[in-house]
Amino acid sequence: MKNSLLGKLKFTHTHFPRLNEECGIFGVSGSKDAATLTALGLHALQHRGQEGCGIVTYDGKSYHSERKFGLVGDNFTKKQSLEKLKGKIAIGHNRYSTTGGETIRNIQPFYADLHGGAISIAHNGNLTNALLLRERMVREGAIFQTTSDTETIVQLVARSKKTEIVDKIIDTLLQIQGGFALSIIANGMLIGARDPHGIRPLVLGKLKNAFILASETCALDIIGAKFVREIENGEVVIITDGKVKSRRPFPKKQQRPCVFEYIYFSRPDSILKNKTAYEYRKNLGTHLAKELDIKPDVVVPVPDSGVPAALGFSQESKIPFELGLIRNHYVGRTFIEPTQQIRSLGVKLKLNPNQSSIKNKKVVLIDDSLVRGTTSTKIIKMLHDFGAKEVHMRIASPAIKYPDFYGVDTPTQEELLAANKNLEEMCDYIGAKSLKFLSLDGLYKALGFDKRDKDNPQFTDHYFTGEYPVRPLDYLNDENLKKLSFLSLASNN
Amino acid sequence: MKNSLLGKLKFTHTHFPRLNEECGIFGVSGSKDAATLTALGLHALQHRGQEGCGIVTYDGKSYHSERKFGLVGDNFTKKQSLEKLKGKIAIGHNRYSTTGGETIRNIQPFYADLHGGAISIAHNGNLTNALLLRERMVREGAIFQTTSDTETIVQLVARSKKTEIVDKIIDTLLQIQGGFALSIIANGMLIGARDPHGIRPLVLGKLKNAFILASETCALDIIGAKFVREIENGEVVIITDGKVKSRRPFPKKQQRPCVFEYIYFSRPDSILKNKTAYEYRKNLGTHLAKELDIKPDVVVPVPDSGVPAALGFSQESKIPFELGLIRNHYVGRTFIEPTQQIRSLGVKLKLNPNQSSIKNKKVVLIDDSLVRGTTSTKIIKMLHDFGAKEVHMRIASPAIKYPDFYGVDTPTQEELLAANKNLEEMCDYIGAKSLKFLSLDGLYKALGFDKRDKDNPQFTDHYFTGEYPVRPLDYLNDENLKKLSFLSLASNN
Amino acid sequence: MKNSLLGKLKFTHTHFPRLNEECGIFGVSGSKDAATLTALGLHALQHRGQEGCGIVTYDGKSYHSERKFGLVGDNFTKKQSLEKLKGKIAIGHNRYSTTGGETIRNIQPFYADLHGGAISIAHNGNLTNALLLRERMVREGAIFQTTSDTETIVQLVARSKKTEIVDKIIDTLLQIQGGFALSIIANGMLIGARDPHGIRPLVLGKLKNAFILASETCALDIIGAKFVREIENGEVVIITDGKVKSRRPFPKKQQRPCVFEYIYFSRPDSILKNKTAYEYRKNLGTHLAKELDIKPDVVVPVPDSGVPAALGFSQESKIPFELGLIRNHYVGRTFIEPTQQIRSLGVKLKLNPNQSSIKNKKVVLIDDSLVRGTTSTKIIKMLHDFGAKEVHMRIASPAIKYPDFYGVDTPTQEELLAANKNLEEMCDYIGAKSLKFLSLDGLYKALGFDKRDKDNPQFTDHYFTGEYPVRPLDYLNDENLKKLSFLSLASNN
Amino acid sequence: MKNSLLGKLKFTHTHFPRLNEECGIFGVSGSKDAATLTALGLHALQHRGQEGCGIVTYDGKSYHSERKFGLVGDNFTKKQSLEKLKGKIAIGHNRYSTTGGETIRNIQPFYADLHGGAISIAHNGNLTNALLLRERMVREGAIFQTTSDTETIVQLVARSKKTEIVDKIIDTLLQIQGGFALSIIANGMLIGARDPHGIRPLVLGKLKNAFILASETCALDIIGAKFVREIENGEVVIITDGKVKSRRPFPKKQQRPCVFEYIYFSRPDSILKNKTAYEYRKNLGTHLAKELDIKPDVVVPVPDSGVPAALGFSQESKIPFELGLIRNHYVGRTFIEPTQQIRSLGVKLKLNPNQSSIKNKKVVLIDDSLVRGTTSTKIIKMLHDFGAKEVHMRIASPAIKYPDFYGVDTPTQEELLAANKNLEEMCDYIGAKSLKFLSLDGLYKALGFDKRDKDNPQFTDHYFTGEYPVRPLDYLNDENLKKLSFLSLASNN
Repeated sequence: MKNSLLGKLKFTHTHFPRLNEECGIFGVSGSKDAATLTALGLHALQHRGQEGCGIVTYDGKSYHSERKFGLVGDNFTKKQSLEKLKGKIAIGHNRYSTTGGETIRNIQPFYADLHGGAISIAHNGNLTNALLLRERMVREGAIFQTTSDTETIVQLVARSKKTEIVDKIIDTLLQIQGGFALSIIANGMLIGARDPHGIRPLVLGKLKNAFILASETCALDIIGAKFVREIENGEVVIITDGKVKSRRPFPKKQQRPCVFEYIYFSRPDSILKNKTAYEYRKNLGTHLAKELDIKPDVVVPVPDSGVPAALGFSQESKIPFELGLIRNHYVGRTFIEPTQQIRSLGVKLKLNPNQSSIKNKKVVLIDDSLVRGTTSTKIIKMLHDFGAKEVHMRIASPAIKYPDFYGVDTPTQEELLAANKNLEEMCDYIGAKSLKFLSLDGLYKALGFDKRDKDNPQFTDHYFTGEYPVRPLDYLNDENLKKLSFLSLASNN
Repeated sequence: MKNSLLGKLKFTHTHFPRLNEECGIFGVSGSKDAATLTALGLHALQHRGQEGCGIVTYDGKSYHSERKFGLVGDNFTKKQSLEKLKGKIAIGHNRYSTTGGETIRNIQPFYADLHGGAISIAHNGNLTNALLLRERMVREGAIFQTTSDTETIVQLVARSKKTEIVDKIIDTLLQIQGGFALSIIANGMLIGARDPHGIRPLVLGKLKNAFILASETCALDIIGAKFVREIENGEVVIITDGKVKSRRPFPKKQQRPCVFEYIYFSRPDSILKNKTAYEYRKNLGTHLAKELDIKPDVVVPVPDSGVPAALGFSQESKIPFELGLIRNHYVGRTFIEPTQQIRSLGVKLKLNPNQSSIKNKKVVLIDDSLVRGTTSTKIIKMLHDFGAKEVHMRIASPAIKYPDFYGVDTPTQEELLAANKNLEEMCDYIGAKSLKFLSLDGLYKALGFDKRDKDNPQFTDHYFTGEYPVRPLDYLNDENLKKLSFLSLASNN
Repeated sequence: MKNSLLGKLKFTHTHFPRLNEECGIFGVSGSKDAATLTALGLHALQHRGQEGCGIVTYDGKSYHSERKFGLVGDNFTKKQSLEKLKGKIAIGHNRYSTTGGETIRNIQPFYADLHGGAISIAHNGNLTNALLLRERMVREGAIFQTTSDTETIVQLVARSKKTEIVDKIIDTLLQIQGGFALSIIANGMLIGARDPHGIRPLVLGKLKNAFILASETCALDIIGAKFVREIENGEVVIITDGKVKSRRPFPKKQQRPCVFEYIYFSRPDSILKNKTAYEYRKNLGTHLAKELDIKPDVVVPVPDSGVPAALGFSQESKIPFELGLIRNHYVGRTFIEPTQQIRSLGVKLKLNPNQSSIKNKKVVLIDDSLVRGTTSTKIIKMLHDFGAKEVHMRIASPAIKYPDFYGVDTPTQEELLAANKNLEEMCDYIGAKSLKFLSLDGLYKALGFDKRDKDNPQFTDHYFTGEYPVRPLDYLNDENLKKLSFLSLASNN
Repeated sequence: MKNSLLGKLKFTHTHFPRLNEECGIFGVSGSKDAATLTALGLHALQHRGQEGCGIVTYDGKSYHSERKFGLVGDNFTKKQSLEKLKGKIAIGHNRYSTTGGETIRNIQPFYADLHGGAISIAHNGNLTNALLLRERMVREGAIFQTTSDTETIVQLVARSKKTEIVDKIIDTLLQIQGGFALSIIANGMLIGARDPHGIRPLVLGKLKNAFILASETCALDIIGAKFVREIENGEVVIITDGKVKSRRPFPKKQQRPCVFEYIYFSRPDSILKNKTAYEYRKNLGTHLAKELDIKPDVVVPVPDSGVPAALGFSQESKIPFELGLIRNHYVGRTFIEPTQQIRSLGVKLKLNPNQSSIKNKKVVLIDDSLVRGTTSTKIIKMLHDFGAKEVHMRIASPAIKYPDFYGVDTPTQEELLAANKNLEEMCDYIGAKSLKFLSLDGLYKALGFDKRDKDNPQFTDHYFTGEYPVRPLDYLNDENLKKLSFLSLASNN
């Protein structure tokens, strides 16, 4: 599908910035501290989304909802606010930070009163046929309040002809396409679901008699919960009365988790298939070092995401690891660039070279990936300005040539450096002495496989290969690219 | 219907506090200052609702919306915020101030994306079958975002099977019951509508080439617009390209405007059927004076609503009019009552006796109406404390015995003083030397009629008579009195 | 002094907008509800200042302070915030609303730690030698935090060489000049003081065992306190342990209260020398009617301040009183004037003609005073637009030709209409058919005197006569007109 | 002095929490981007204080001030707000985050109008005789607005009898004692000063024609300025018209910078005496490794402050460095601990063990210092819970037994673990298998000296030795420990 698809995809992706998000979800059933546990879980998942966060609880009679812009730690820490979120069942959501004016309506979990009850949904991922489904429903009289594909799920549930709520949800899951992980409250049940390929992650945990759903295991650690297992691809779990039941409504498919959960998204201490993300990333560095063809003086990571790979690289190559770039953790909103005399300001707000580690040295600079190349260019310039003799860039993953449609906010193909330049041109663009990416083979080896299974790849690695496990229907047809709403909000409500 | 109805109505009214509101609406078509004119119009209609206000405009392509808690004069006065509300068509809404936590979602105008366009609606009134209609639609999969009956109208339009938007709206009007005045933007048209009896008010004005819709004529005065005419009962006006077209989809009915628009709601300078509300109210005082059987020294109004009637009363009776109660206009939120030593605090925050006008005098105290009697009781006590010799209470309207269901926030019948006590008991309760109400005949005479037409009353005067022009279906059946939403919001969003 | 002074005063007054304020003060000693009583008292005095308000209490060990922008009723009504203001002694202050950016530092009461204790001061009035005193102290090393003359008082107390706090305060009073009323907490005492002429008002009240100080008696009424007496001119009262002691440190002077407290400032129900302000104002109308030389159809007040005089005028002249102008009480911040089609917007936001009372009628329009004439001009234009046949303006006080320097925010002499035009020109300017002011003799008669005592006028009536009881030293010498601070605040803190 | 002193110091330190702060200061003279450069410099110094920040500029005529709670990046990034801060001279200040209610008055820089001009001061450090000086001035009539010792400096300048402003400042410096670095604007000059021992840091930089003052060199890097030199101990620099003049008013003293600037406070990339703080800290780890007597499997730092020492330790000992603790950078306000089932919550909000690096391993845990021991205890418990076989704690500095009085917020001696327990007891308390501190000799060697010079120590190392270079007068006498203010603020203004 790859080549033919990409011609059509040009330009289109930026039209729907709000539909593309990487988020974190959480759920708990059976604890009287449900809201507090959810707040803590969301705090541990904060790296998956910083724009907004929300918690919905159910107390057996009523639902309670609180949704806020900003961080969990700034919104859900007061006893007073958590006490309002009554009940033993709770779900929560962290929303990815996108630029531009946002409205509180788009913060999840979503809620809807249905005939005979209500439903609340938190969703991580992106549907690839949300617009087609939305258009059909609007024609039939449905009123949408948001521009989010999560509302498409809610509306499908509301309109399902099935009688039981679980059947309505499964009826809905069979209609939607893309990558998704869901945490749902309905009729006193906590329900989790993962898309047929398991593109987006979801794990099950246990804390005394309570069951937990979370995007990553680090959210279990913070509350002292035990990691039980991953939710399987295509699995729907229904948690009620301290019991977990499974349903598998989809035809059996190969599991293909998003490879970038391993490379970058997940927190280093989270466990993915029995190993920590940290181990996989050190392995990526190890395999990168194996392909080394130069003799640098020092290994310097781009902090913080490049650190594990750089440690693996240093241990394999015996070249000393140094913090050659110091990170300022207090980064607020964007500064105005005052005059031309202050160059490279953007990256200087976050990073500053550590002279003692780089002056007069041959530096091998390690990063987890290379997307647009703009930050790398500024960092390499800065290292030279502070006296580095040579800067060799090494990337602990293959070159990204294709955008994502399953919930990750990637630039359009036109903005992806590797989609538009060859290796030499890229090296020239970023100003490095040399540039190398980890090979696709090296990637699979680092992740524990002999090699990539061409017929049934073990991951969805479309970023590098253009092989998409699910056709992105909404993005194939220009007819879909019409306006989502006629409303242009004057303010955020 | 009256007696049989009232048995059932007991207790029920307080269950739906949010469905009962008295509001102000406005609309303008054909002015590049549409948003500013709407802000000014809403400012003039501020007495009809102080909780929140909103404006929606349409610029030919997009809708722009701004909805806020609080007063128009605190929210829509900055050039910057008005400039965001682009377009030559605008509608606006003032929401009545009710107690308790409210959400911004319930502030109007409401907006919805429909198939092939969008619609925005501002509504003054109350539907008496909103719950029945809502329940039917939720069964069919509709998702409601608010507890307001205005959303019922929006959802009915969205689901109408008609093709043209005006037909969809009329299709909707034929299904809803109660008292309503609507100001709508759809497909570039400004549409106004009034219920079949004309219970709630709506007038048409003109400013150069622009047409205006407003709840009262005082909103035309503030922008210098000319008063054209009232929208008729049951009329739908469609304003587009500087032309006004009328449709009358309902079977012809007797006009029966709410008599309390004449007695209390409308601003004194607003024109109702060729006279100002001020004139009608002076007349009410005149007729009240004709029924006078005592010789007081001074006529004192309860400010500000009792002033016109007191002036009429004074001019007819030749007894001097004095401001015996001074009003503090700076009333903020509720004060805490500190100790028992500070009595009657509630009314003291607003009113204080003016000793020179009441000390050692026989006072006739004039108010427009008597509802619960609590304020009157405190005022009369205060007048005695400051030296009044006698206080005779005279009410410039008949005794209120029945609640309203058409958009006016009245207490339940149990709380209405006149529904539970006879004249002597009431006089005793409020602590007056004597108490009299204007007779029903006096009311109709003051309003310009020889007498009340028993078969086709010229107003809806159900407050006094219990004769309801529209059966309040939602309130007749306990089955309807179920929870409107399972969501109990933890905060206001 | 008058003529020679006025040449120098030109232009100068606008340089010190912040030094000119009309405020309200309050104090209570001996009640465990001290803070709440103060909040209520300030609420009753809200008409004297709306920009900000503050309360300081003393609990025997510590002082507690809360100062806010905005109304008392919006800031001091929550139990939680009042409970923080502990102690049985409290003082409070309402600050007059001036335009432009203000800082919270200028909100009173002021507070200072002194050697061996502390002091807190609330001040109504204006010192006429504050700058001279300030300059001397800055030369000696004093640091001023505000631009308020109240801080001059505080700094003088801090620097006094006397030992006892009361002596330090009296030492200070002997140095300051102008019009002032003070409410002070120091060493557990509540102290009140009034300037030697008694220009600014201050009264004493009693509530059970507690003593109260307030600018007006209406602040006693709201808390149910008894009015004891006025504080005399030049008197210092020291309230401690339920006792009131008096000291009179100044040479004996004729009392000369500000005549505008009678004409306009005080609330109508407040008592000034045994009568209510309402009575005096009706009398002003009565005497105005005696000078009537035309036959109008109707008496119309400019609401609300013209109402009492109009009632007196109507009762004396037998011409009917009508509310010919309806006031909108919901006035927020300033609206933007959209286009030329909307004229006279400023006054329309507040007032609208009531057609039934003025159409085709000869109107006599009554106002309490005429300052710049801009509002009158707009009102008269509006009355003509709505059909008034003739508008005759009558002012219930003499023509204002001179500015104030004792705490009232008057325009410069150049902006005073009567200082620059003769009667005919003024009538022409405001567009009236005729214009008359109450005579100076009429004023004194209405206020209860046979005539004005030329040698020892019973009031300070400098507005009309230019006779200033205290030389405004700061305003005589251009050298004083230098910058008060080199700090130009970027924000309000 | 040490032993005798410490008996008296017991309990006292917590009485003045506000006087103890570690802050960052900045200044620039000669750039039209002065405010923006200051904002960027403060951003780079954000690690020195997060409670509040302020900038004051001078445009040749007026001063402009903006002071805010919170981070620089949240307050000084908008063009609009920076443009209000006009002028080519600016100073700025970051305030240390302390717990409890704070008032905006305590945010620096401070400003005062003096006779003939004005002054603005930013101060990092703590005066040890501020209370004595304050008490003297209050006795003389000075009014203090804050509880900060910086105001003591301002008041001394205001009251100096000298004529020239620079002489007034030097007159003041000769009276104050303690550790201080100052950045001052006065009469168009930018003035920097450092205490006689150079306890607190201050450096000079240059950007084109502009001169810069900053607490650390990292604030020069962010704006692209060149590091010129450190301000010497006891030096006063006066920068005006692009020239730097020096004055040295103090008797010559040995420089003794605070050793904790090297160990912990300064950002790793900042240069202290020709080396980066990062190099010194790696050296501390190297020397710590030389004293190693066990054979661990893995070196784990407490992030982020322990990382450089751990890297030095690993490189010296050849034991692999691993990120055994993963830090969550999104830490907001304090969470409520919900129930006993969630233990060690405090540290879990920030850190989580990385199982792959610690499970079944002998861990040597490296931290820069050990203060109370509470965090170490929780971390070690957590490492054990996640499977660590042994945890050996190694501290890259000697044991802290004495509090600081020169601007660093240390606990009282009673709370310092090493002041109350011997090594064995401490090891037991934190739950480690073994515990060692770097020796005092090792410290001096790591910092580049053969050994500590007992007679003239090269640093102030009172934390470890109790040898204080300046007697903390305010803290010696219980008489000084009286209340700083009688005002207990009800809110933050």
